[in-house]
Amino acid sequence: MSTIFLNTILELLPAKRVVSDASQIDSLTHTCIPYRQLPAYVIYPTSTEEVQHIVKAAAAAGLPIWTVSTGKNWGYGERTATYAGGILLILEQMNKIIEVNEELAYAVIEPGVTQEQFNTYIRANHPTLWTDSGGTTKSASVLGNALDKGRGLTPHADHFGNLCGLDVVLPSGEVLKTGLGASDNNLTRHLYKWDTGPYLDGLFAQSNLGIVTRAGVWLMRAPERFGYGVFEFKKPAEALAPFVDDLRRLVQSGTLTSFPHVANDYAMLSIVSQYPHHLRKDGETCLSQSALQTWRKEHGVAEWTFGFGLYGSRAVVADQKRAVKRVLARYGRLQFVEGVLDQGFVGACMRYFAPLVNKLLGKSPAFINVLIPSINLFRGIPTDVFVKQVYSYHHPQKPTGPFDVAKDHCGLIWFGPVIPFTGAKVEEALTEAKRVFADHGFDFFVELMVENERSLILLFGIFYIREDEAEQKRATAWHEAINACFAQMGYYPYRATVMSMEHLFSKDPVHKKILHTLKEALDPEVTLAPGKYGIGYRKD
Amino acid sequence: MSTIFLNTILELLPAKRVVSDASQIDSLTHTCIPYRQLPAYVIYPTSTEEVQHIVKAAAAAGLPIWTVSTGKNWGYGERTATYAGGILLILEQMNKIIEVNEELAYAVIEPGVTQEQFNTYIRANHPTLWTDSGGTTKSASVLGNALDKGRGLTPHADHFGNLCGLDVVLPSGEVLKTGLGASDNNLTRHLYKWDTGPYLDGLFAQSNLGIVTRAGVWLMRAPERFGYGVFEFKKPAEALAPFVDDLRRLVQSGTLTSFPHVANDYAMLSIVSQYPHHLRKDGETCLSQSALQTWRKEHGVAEWTFGFGLYGSRAVVADQKRAVKRVLARYGRLQFVEGVLDQGFVGACMRYFAPLVNKLLGKSPAFINVLIPSINLFRGIPTDVFVKQVYSYHHPQKPTGPFDVAKDHCGLIWFGPVIPFTGAKVEEALTEAKRVFADHGFDFFVELMVENERSLILLFGIFYIREDEAEQKRATAWHEAINACFAQMGYYPYRATVMSMEHLFSKDPVHKKILHTLKEALDPEVTLAPGKYGIGYRKD
Repeated sequence: MSTIFLNTILELLPAKRVVSDASQIDSLTHTCIPYRQLPAYVIYPTSTEEVQHIVKAAAAAGLPIWTVSTGKNWGYGERTATYAGGILLILEQMNKIIEVNEELAYAVIEPGVTQEQFNTYIRANHPTLWTDSGGTTKSASVLGNALDKGRGLTPHADHFGNLCGLDVVLPSGEVLKTGLGASDNNLTRHLYKWDTGPYLDGLFAQSNLGIVTRAGVWLMRAPERFGYGVFEFKKPAEALAPFVDDLRRLVQSGTLTSFPHVANDYAMLSIVSQYPHHLRKDGETCLSQSALQTWRKEHGVAEWTFGFGLYGSRAVVADQKRAVKRVLARYGRLQFVEGVLDQGFVGACMRYFAPLVNKLLGKSPAFINVLIPSINLFRGIPTDVFVKQVYSYHHPQKPTGPFDVAKDHCGLIWFGPVIPFTGAKVEEALTEAKRVFADHGFDFFVELMVENERSLILLFGIFYIREDEAEQKRATAWHEAINACFAQMGYYPYRATVMSMEHLFSKDPVHKKILHTLKEALDPEVTLAPGKYGIGYRKD
Repeated sequence: MSTIFLNTILELLPAKRVVSDASQIDSLTHTCIPYRQLPAYVIYPTSTEEVQHIVKAAAAAGLPIWTVSTGKNWGYGERTATYAGGILLILEQMNKIIEVNEELAYAVIEPGVTQEQFNTYIRANHPTLWTDSGGTTKSASVLGNALDKGRGLTPHADHFGNLCGLDVVLPSGEVLKTGLGASDNNLTRHLYKWDTGPYLDGLFAQSNLGIVTRAGVWLMRAPERFGYGVFEFKKPAEALAPFVDDLRRLVQSGTLTSFPHVANDYAMLSIVSQYPHHLRKDGETCLSQSALQTWRKEHGVAEWTFGFGLYGSRAVVADQKRAVKRVLARYGRLQFVEGVLDQGFVGACMRYFAPLVNKLLGKSPAFINVLIPSINLFRGIPTDVFVKQVYSYHHPQKPTGPFDVAKDHCGLIWFGPVIPFTGAKVEEALTEAKRVFADHGFDFFVELMVENERSLILLFGIFYIREDEAEQKRATAWHEAINACFAQMGYYPYRATVMSMEHLFSKDPVHKKILHTLKEALDPEVTLAPGKYGIGYRKD
């Protein structure tokens, strides 16, 4: 069957877009998570029609297809399937920006379009529009991230929520075009989200029910004024809960319309420096409290830090600044520093004096390098500054040129449970999580990501030595333990790692059953990504 | 089978909640649209468990179930199914407000909870929260409207978009609980919208794939400051397109965060007065331009009128007022009148002088009665003032006591296509629509409803004499013609009338097929509402 399949595919696609050589496949499919399955083929389609052909040929040959847009979901699964063999479909060569409507503030793009490509194009050609970028790499797929329910930081942070009108290759090989009253002359499918009749787009998020080959993305109108604040928490630990409650009030009142990530000391330190292995005691796998303190002092890092954007008219941004200051000033140091972007005299001065101010505040020089990318991220401009934190642990320094976290053997797992946006719940959850980190000998890494007015994602991460088998085991054990710990509290991750998908919905048989019923109805041969998000296993 | 079914149901439910008497059924199921099918039974469950039992019993008996929450979707279908016979399930007695979380700004309610009940309860018990209400009747179901993708007017106007975490009785009789990583101890299912894995809530909007018996509803945090403006368009017709473009800019800049309905003269006149049959020429079915002018002058109604709310801090609302004024002042008369709600001296003065000002502006006294309900609607407080416009045509006066539009034989059809939010497209669409109204002899009624930053719903409506067969035919012909006219332009309604569901998706076979595949998988016996939104017909 496989030979027939290969021949069929090679009639359709040039050989350079069909990889079956084992060593090439190996180098294309490294993972950060301590789990990896190798595909038999890697295929790079360049059009929806090719995807349709591949789906039909794979179904005929009984080969499963695992699809990634670019596979830069480092720490979640990268390019591994839940099973060995089959086809890995990489959509990175489908990277066209099909349409941009500046007046109505949307674009239609393919899955290979990266955050950087999209942002650069929009800024150059449609300056009244802003894209939103996640804190992950510039080379991540805009659509891949959105379909994985990834998050950004501007008011358009909800990437899936800002998709409108999808082209989806169904397991049958047909193309479904979602969008209002879909038909051959539909003018509004990228303008109105909920469609006529059932809203189907949700079926294709974190799913294996279809392959999205094109989508409308709603863009943000560039505001008249942009402000940027950076805040450092300086109070004792017992002030954290009231601080979280006050942060929620700022979000609920509409004062804060960006979606900041409140990073703890370790998360921040790994951005601005390298791991101080010399401070660690022999035989220990993580830092003691006093070693962490030493590291923090060296770089002038607070226990909690976050940046945030402000958007609106001149008067609105000024009022937001007053309101934020009123609330946050009592918890630490707040500075508004968007002025460094200013192209005039003020900006020049700020940039000139920034290193000095930075030094006076006790910060290491690396802070300056993070500041402008961080401000820009809240204007939707992607950066690699943050994702390079992954290199802090096992590499002597962060890469300066091109890099690939997975290929560079960075061990990384993310775990992002959603929890209620209240101080009490955050405190409780952090206490439990710290215990799990300590039990498994990992340094405590967390970011409190504002998800919406009601919930936060606690983004936990671990860095470990990817090539070391004992480390893989330790990482896997941490991952299982923290999943179990949060499930016990009633909290579940907004996004699953490939290695944990099997057990999703195990506590909810009705939910599991309906997902399997849908899978069976739409993909009876189980061609698309069997086992993704725990849905639809192959019958063999 | 039917007898067995009735016996089974009567073992479960008291007889007063099971109606099988034909005349009773007749009086419960009047419609405004010129279409009606009578059910064999009307059943009123009071709990999810009862709904489960009824679904199972109906499936066993081969009886279809058409479900309405309260059936107050006047002008869209009320309580008629697409077929005769079967069970009409009315959920109005499932009217519990299960939970309100003031801190996290959400409530969990049942489908029988009405706009008025919800708003009254929240205002009395949780004054820092606001509900959002549609311009329809106080007695409409909050969830029914949301699942039909109905709209409100505050920043929480997107009713379906503000649902989070549903309990759904599936055709199998099982209960699906959607929400993040659903499980027995889920604490966040009403806080985070997109779930783990595929997002399924969309399957249950405008659909027949399940019966929603409970849902989380996100509520708005009461703003520090509320403003209300009313605008009357006073320019020649050619200024309409630039006005629409400027309105879009106000929405896209975040200045206008409410979702106003820009009503044309006839829409506004039918709110403040009764139809001037005496001005109509013999043999004509609608008013001439000069008769309309006369009617307008009598009541001081502009060609286009809308009210809007402003929300935020004192400084933000002041800035929004300046910005709105800067833009709208050149198109007509803008007044900020939220002061009439003031409980102090200012409010007392405004209320005292309002009738005088009203008179000076050339308005009929009825305007005063509309003003306060209109302002309140933009604070989420429901009103019956607008829906009573339906009585303007065929009744001598609007009802003052309890009323039921369907029972009172008001002939009404709504048609709400979504169109791009641009002046040029609005102008073009209005021209086409006017032709259809004229062709069928109906007075031109339209509201431009702001749907989002990118699209408008053009809400067209006709009033006709429900009991008159010729009028029914004329209304049906208008409905068919306007559907066809807009489909021709590439525009489709955000919500379908029951009489037009059969032809949905006829131009999009892949979309139609996937909906049927889903229906067959989830409801193989086609128990739930066969034919709703054109999905799943019975095999008989």
